[in-house]
Amino acid sequence: MYKGIGASAGIGIGKVVVIKEQELNYTKTTIEDTEAEKKRLSDAIEVFIEKTTQMVEAMKVTAGEQESEILEGHILMIQDPAITEQIEAKIDGEKINAEAAVEEACDFFAQIFSMAEDELTQQRASDLGDIKTRLIKILLGIEDVDISAVPAGTVLVAEDLTPSMTAGINPDNVEGVLTEIGGKTSHSAIICRSMEIPAVLSIENITSIVQDGDEVVLDGATGEAYVKPEASIVEEYKEKKAKFLEEKAALAKFVGKPSQTADGHVVELVANIGGPDEAAGVLEKDGEGVGLFRTEFLFMESNDVPSEESQFEAYKKVAETLEGKPVIIRTLDIGGDKALPYLGLPTEENPFLGFRAVRFCLQRPEIYKPQLRALLRASAFGKIRIMVPLVTCVDELRAVKALIEEIKGELDAEGIAYDKDIEVGVMMETAAASLIADILAKEADFFSIGTNDLTGYTMAADRGNPDVAYLYSAYNPAVLRSIKNIIGAANKEGIMAGMCGEAASDPLLVPVLLAFGLNEFSVSATAILATRKVMSLWTMDECKALADEVMQLETEKEVKELLQERARS
Amino acid sequence: MYKGIGASAGIGIGKVVVIKEQELNYTKTTIEDTEAEKKRLSDAIEVFIEKTTQMVEAMKVTAGEQESEILEGHILMIQDPAITEQIEAKIDGEKINAEAAVEEACDFFAQIFSMAEDELTQQRASDLGDIKTRLIKILLGIEDVDISAVPAGTVLVAEDLTPSMTAGINPDNVEGVLTEIGGKTSHSAIICRSMEIPAVLSIENITSIVQDGDEVVLDGATGEAYVKPEASIVEEYKEKKAKFLEEKAALAKFVGKPSQTADGHVVELVANIGGPDEAAGVLEKDGEGVGLFRTEFLFMESNDVPSEESQFEAYKKVAETLEGKPVIIRTLDIGGDKALPYLGLPTEENPFLGFRAVRFCLQRPEIYKPQLRALLRASAFGKIRIMVPLVTCVDELRAVKALIEEIKGELDAEGIAYDKDIEVGVMMETAAASLIADILAKEADFFSIGTNDLTGYTMAADRGNPDVAYLYSAYNPAVLRSIKNIIGAANKEGIMAGMCGEAASDPLLVPVLLAFGLNEFSVSATAILATRKVMSLWTMDECKALADEVMQLETEKEVKELLQERARS
Repeated sequence: MYKGIGASAGIGIGKVVVIKEQELNYTKTTIEDTEAEKKRLSDAIEVFIEKTTQMVEAMKVTAGEQESEILEGHILMIQDPAITEQIEAKIDGEKINAEAAVEEACDFFAQIFSMAEDELTQQRASDLGDIKTRLIKILLGIEDVDISAVPAGTVLVAEDLTPSMTAGINPDNVEGVLTEIGGKTSHSAIICRSMEIPAVLSIENITSIVQDGDEVVLDGATGEAYVKPEASIVEEYKEKKAKFLEEKAALAKFVGKPSQTADGHVVELVANIGGPDEAAGVLEKDGEGVGLFRTEFLFMESNDVPSEESQFEAYKKVAETLEGKPVIIRTLDIGGDKALPYLGLPTEENPFLGFRAVRFCLQRPEIYKPQLRALLRASAFGKIRIMVPLVTCVDELRAVKALIEEIKGELDAEGIAYDKDIEVGVMMETAAASLIADILAKEADFFSIGTNDLTGYTMAADRGNPDVAYLYSAYNPAVLRSIKNIIGAANKEGIMAGMCGEAASDPLLVPVLLAFGLNEFSVSATAILATRKVMSLWTMDECKALADEVMQLETEKEVKELLQERARS
Repeated sequence: MYKGIGASAGIGIGKVVVIKEQELNYTKTTIEDTEAEKKRLSDAIEVFIEKTTQMVEAMKVTAGEQESEILEGHILMIQDPAITEQIEAKIDGEKINAEAAVEEACDFFAQIFSMAEDELTQQRASDLGDIKTRLIKILLGIEDVDISAVPAGTVLVAEDLTPSMTAGINPDNVEGVLTEIGGKTSHSAIICRSMEIPAVLSIENITSIVQDGDEVVLDGATGEAYVKPEASIVEEYKEKKAKFLEEKAALAKFVGKPSQTADGHVVELVANIGGPDEAAGVLEKDGEGVGLFRTEFLFMESNDVPSEESQFEAYKKVAETLEGKPVIIRTLDIGGDKALPYLGLPTEENPFLGFRAVRFCLQRPEIYKPQLRALLRASAFGKIRIMVPLVTCVDELRAVKALIEEIKGELDAEGIAYDKDIEVGVMMETAAASLIADILAKEADFFSIGTNDLTGYTMAADRGNPDVAYLYSAYNPAVLRSIKNIIGAANKEGIMAGMCGEAASDPLLVPVLLAFGLNEFSVSATAILATRKVMSLWTMDECKALADEVMQLETEKEVKELLQERARS
């Protein structure tokens, strides 16, 4: 048995096909005819763009539009003059062959990108590695591995799945994926989840352990994989697989149904998204709206503060896609672990307790106002709500609302349409916000509880620090009391109490949150139907009885054990 | 007018004496007779020790025992074989004169110390600079500047006050101090406060701006200083000085009085200390005990985990010095900004939300148990209470209590005495602890609210980060509510509710804290009488009326303004 990181749930049973990148054997040579060499290069780039465009089209079907964007990005990168000019300069100046020039130039840029701390720029470094390999292959006339040709019942085994590899995957033929590197948020993981292919990542040396044709079973939830398993194990996994598929199919019956308890208490079940392209997926998964649209991606994707216009387009796209369903858009939550090099923020000793989110935005109106303007303008095209992150005092909410009123005046003067009744709410994620929830509830139009940060701040435990991971749990009585207090304050003022942290889709907590009076659950799109199902298994009286019991307990362990004992499925 | 950092309150009016370090002119030469050179060195070291010992004795009288310890440390350092052997090795190996050998060896060690991140080790680097200068002076036959000879009414002006300089100060003759470097926690600041000499630090170029004999006035509270002021300014400062001295004298009448409100509601007024040598100062300032003894100094002073025995001696000394008055000793609160190189803790992204204090201690019983054993053993010599920092869940308190019970069993078996009724309390400084104060109150023997960290965690604002300093305030309604909740829970269970954060000595907050039901105020020794005076200005009904008004307010600004408006003095 091999243990890796379970990165895409499901059971895979099949025969191994090992995907090994071919060695790129070429010699760095001195060339005379630099013009001819540059022609070789430009021809290769043309072929690259052509092939990649085909891949993008294929991928839109198999993995969805958002995932195909990574490959579209490859086209943009190879068209970036900064990169092509660097390659050509090497051919001209150093008189080296195109293969060597491509390798050196791509490595140069990859190295620069990999020094950045944000994940997105680091992703670009690995994208450049993929581009480099494929471009050199084209120059050498080597054909790409054709993953699309693997037979049905294949378990793909690779060091890593590059974007160009995943483009070829036909999910009907691939039972599972095993890799040597990558984690839950890696490209391979995202792609496998979107194609619903079970995947276990980060199994050391797996490409050397297995051979083509070996039988393999894997569990993408637990991260376990067996190579050449005994018959009893195969039997066990067949049963597991049948059960998994059955449960998945059973969720289908919740499509189009209201999100309600067994006794008909209806709530809103919406989704968290990270970019406008994910909006369509929310509707596909039967979400009733968007409970958290993170706007950071717009700022992280670009090399400078995005213009009001480009933000407007993005917000409008989501609003229109959701066709009048509510879309809660969180204003810029930058800082902390999300640094943007071009903002020039200083490095902080404790970034999570630092100058970020609304604190930053209120000090930098030249950045914040264009976002608020873009949001107001986009509000004419759907039901947009504005959410302010990291609020710790009512002054901050008042300052944002004042800024919005100011912008409304400007838009009125300019004759630009917007939703005059646009709602402004607070992301409840600090201990301070919880303590003054009653004060905030009087001036906010809605609350959405960010349980991830709320848990971290309440427990004084950094989520990313493994040494204090045992404290980072929403089952702690302190965190549950804080959540209850926030919901109670919202209920009392008659404003919506939502939740956009991970707790909202935790099947153990859903009945407790219903009992507290939570009105809106914002979860990842893939968790919508499962969450709707959990809601349907409880009456409100049962939820309340459970919550009463839970709130008597004194420790996280007791809470967790009781919730596990009472779990329904 | 020049503006610096007000580092020691009071008004100084006097004539400048500029203290300039003499240039140490010597040439690095090659010597033949290394034995004779080493004799020169050892003679110089002998003189150094002799002179320093005299300084220590003088300083114990002028500045107190604790401050003299810095100079005692100089003796220990120059006796450290690691340093002397390095100097001798340079004489032997490189055949250089003693002056050059001392300079190079001291610079070498100073450089190593200055790379450390903790203040204590950095202080050692500056100590080594002082030692180096004095030792070379002795070798060159240069007499030290004799600060003790300055005439009455002198304002000392120096780049910085070194420990050896301050040893010579006669506070009767020194009206004030102005320096170019140093902050509120620098050595100069500490010394000036303990000698009650007004001081303004960090005035750029002040040693060049003034000349000997210039008239100067300074305000050590506001950080303002005038050189050759107009007559009207001098008048103004004379009045200010008279008022300051009058208020100081007025405090004297509170010596020996109970700490109580105007209508006789009595509370405990105790002091925070950082080391056993500060204990005597608490009694001098009429403190009724110690509300927070930080034990980190023991761990920061040494190069390894201090032994149970050395800890026992330190705790025993405090317990004995306090003669049966209560002494709350906080167990090791290491981590965060207080890293100890020898513990090998990893660097953390957000150290304040990381692996520190009780989290660290419970995982490292080989470090924690000796401390608890030392505390229990010392409890036989006075009234020691044990306080656990950074608690976020009741499991942590239970685990510490279980460890204490285990050690009690061991001590019983070994026939070693300890206080069988020793109290174990919680330092209330996290949002989680506040939220579960009722649960903790059932199992803790007392609470002491650490308002500094409580404010930081509640407001998600790092105290050390200037960009979020505006949020770091205990006047925030969220923080006040949290404090009130903690005190209420303690009152309900009938356990002591104390406070050892800075809010406890804030004259604006004292009446509010009295109204909340705080039983114990732990403040810096120098703030004891002033705090006792503030308490005497209010009846409990007045306190409650003020608190009721305050708790109606919604913003930090409103709270601060109301408290300022109602302040009594």
